[in-house]
Amino acid sequence: MSDSPTQFPRTPEVDRALAIAKRGCDELLIESEFALKLARSAATGKPLRCKLGLDPTAPDIHLGHTVVLNKLRQLQDLGHTVIFLIGDFTSMIGDPSGRNTTRPPLTREQIESNAKTYFEQAALVLDRARTEIRYNSEWSTPLGADGMIRLASRYTLARLLERDDFAKRYADGQPIAMHELLYPLMQGYDSVALQSDLELGGTDQKFNLLVGRELQRHWGQEPQCILTMPLLEGTDGIEKMSKSKNNYIGISEPPLEMFGKAMSISDTLMWRWYDLISLRPNEALVQFKREVADGRNPREIKVLLAQEIVTRFHSARAADEALAEFEARFKAGAAPDEMPEFTFATDGKNGIAIVALLKQAGLAPSTSEATRNIEQGGVKIDGQKITDRALLVRPGTYVVQVGKRKWARVTVK
Amino acid sequence: MSDSPTQFPRTPEVDRALAIAKRGCDELLIESEFALKLARSAATGKPLRCKLGLDPTAPDIHLGHTVVLNKLRQLQDLGHTVIFLIGDFTSMIGDPSGRNTTRPPLTREQIESNAKTYFEQAALVLDRARTEIRYNSEWSTPLGADGMIRLASRYTLARLLERDDFAKRYADGQPIAMHELLYPLMQGYDSVALQSDLELGGTDQKFNLLVGRELQRHWGQEPQCILTMPLLEGTDGIEKMSKSKNNYIGISEPPLEMFGKAMSISDTLMWRWYDLISLRPNEALVQFKREVADGRNPREIKVLLAQEIVTRFHSARAADEALAEFEARFKAGAAPDEMPEFTFATDGKNGIAIVALLKQAGLAPSTSEATRNIEQGGVKIDGQKITDRALLVRPGTYVVQVGKRKWARVTVK
Repeated sequence: MSDSPTQFPRTPEVDRALAIAKRGCDELLIESEFALKLARSAATGKPLRCKLGLDPTAPDIHLGHTVVLNKLRQLQDLGHTVIFLIGDFTSMIGDPSGRNTTRPPLTREQIESNAKTYFEQAALVLDRARTEIRYNSEWSTPLGADGMIRLASRYTLARLLERDDFAKRYADGQPIAMHELLYPLMQGYDSVALQSDLELGGTDQKFNLLVGRELQRHWGQEPQCILTMPLLEGTDGIEKMSKSKNNYIGISEPPLEMFGKAMSISDTLMWRWYDLISLRPNEALVQFKREVADGRNPREIKVLLAQEIVTRFHSARAADEALAEFEARFKAGAAPDEMPEFTFATDGKNGIAIVALLKQAGLAPSTSEATRNIEQGGVKIDGQKITDRALLVRPGTYVVQVGKRKWARVTVK
Repeated sequence: MSDSPTQFPRTPEVDRALAIAKRGCDELLIESEFALKLARSAATGKPLRCKLGLDPTAPDIHLGHTVVLNKLRQLQDLGHTVIFLIGDFTSMIGDPSGRNTTRPPLTREQIESNAKTYFEQAALVLDRARTEIRYNSEWSTPLGADGMIRLASRYTLARLLERDDFAKRYADGQPIAMHELLYPLMQGYDSVALQSDLELGGTDQKFNLLVGRELQRHWGQEPQCILTMPLLEGTDGIEKMSKSKNNYIGISEPPLEMFGKAMSISDTLMWRWYDLISLRPNEALVQFKREVADGRNPREIKVLLAQEIVTRFHSARAADEALAEFEARFKAGAAPDEMPEFTFATDGKNGIAIVALLKQAGLAPSTSEATRNIEQGGVKIDGQKITDRALLVRPGTYVVQVGKRKWARVTVK
């Protein structure tokens, strides 16, 4: 950091960029350093290099995964470069101790195929023109066994054991294989090789991202800043979005399903999603909040969010069509703006029988009445008529309707 | 270990070989396994592979260094193969953290030159025909960064922290650089690459030698046994032999000096040296002890040891000449078999002034008398006339003589 801060003026534009970077984030470290990087970039026209490391093992993306991509897109829109880093080096090793069966070694072909799929999905959010795709084997393989030893010499055991999970496992007497301690160093060395200015990751990645800072200092580079993003709550508004909880929106889901799921979230969660997923400017969000405080129906704001999501992953036309279809269904069904909410705890796998759900949610006086309602075609879930009276309703959040007037928002856990 | 022990008979010959291997040793682990290896080797005629790892940094050998070489020679005389392993891989890295300034990286030329010098000296003890010289870069370099990670996955942090010095440093909050934890694994991997049956080392190497056993098991090999040898006490009989204590016999010293130093050791130390340095069979040692118990002068046994040492590092003729010269000088000087002993504690660097020594050892009534004795040529140390009255006697053990009748054995510490 030979450039002194006074050389680069902290303009309102720099402050605005900083606010965009910080929106929805968990932590930005070190903020003053990042402000300086932004100011220098603005003055020199040299884009910042923003790194995202990816483990190319599970290329199936849902909306939760796009939170970090979204932040990167915001940075791209500010003129910066995104480095989409495929961790092929360690993926080809897998977990050599064989303890972690979910991490088998991948072949070069699998990695490239996964990375391609992943990037095709990510490109729905990212700006391809400002994205650099790199593979870390480019500099990790040439390190050699001797380079690995030199790299290891740059960090002490005590510092690595500051990572929460290592500290806990060591304290609990659970084994830590030595290669696990090398992985944060490899990740940090990626930042050296890429001369990264900023590294993004989930909150759980904070320690690893900080290692990059220290290694860059050892290599005489200006240390990167780190930006951690929180995990997105799923449609239930409670748990983090995940496939296993069935509270997710897959980015390849059909427009109407996507739209409907987005419309099913609570008003509180809507603001959270705006922060983390929407690319609308910060000023627009402030405006929306003011309007709702002044009496505007939040449902209208939710429609805009649902449309933005469908537009991003399909098209503006698909979003319009989804809105029209959604409104038509609900107009026909006259879905109320407010309805009672119920939550059912199940074993999380098999779900709950539809007749039991109807009775316990007060939508039918008895299970036999519930059965009759189904047989008469009077029961709908998320607008779809139910015909199977033995249906098991799996974990998720649904709008359930019996006849014209009985409604409930039901969450099965 | 697919071969069952019963296949290979434990003959008296095997027991004899085991006794030779154990002579003077600190620990042999696991003895029953080693007995089995010896029995199998005897039955199949396939020599055992006995490994000694060397750090090619300080090629200047004294008698203390030959203890392990001696054990290897005994194993060679039993028909086995010695692998003289030059640790060039890690030597070329040095201590990359820069903390240890005594371990700068060596060039390939320095390593080869040091290894050559070392081996030339070691060959005075070893049987060249049964010695294999290897460099560990042969298999360490091809490991690559990925192989290093796989190797690291074979060991847990907790196991490495069982090494005494690591445990102590970690407990004391002293930094342990990560590469230090990798070195025992590299050393263990050498045993895998060499398919070692036995690894020798100093007592302080025990932990590292045991790592080799475990890694060999991981690689599906029969684990090596380990044999640790104690450090040799120097001529003073108190401290371990070392150059800095000036209680050593360098293997390139002239025959008479070597002979004289060997003759200066105590009778107790003589038996220890026999165990650790002499290649005489165990039975001969038992016989010597019996004769001394029956009244034979131990000085005669000491002469045989001194002759064996000079013969090994020079020649039988040099040993005979040294004995003759030694006896002539002492006959002329009429050195008594017994003489008073004195020990002087100094700062360990500058030693003690000769005149003070003479006075305090009762060899001169005053320092002025001591000075006159020196000027008259009446003072000898180890048979050599002293002319410098300002001489500082450095740490070591000496026979000091004033005139014909005053003698003392003096140790300066």
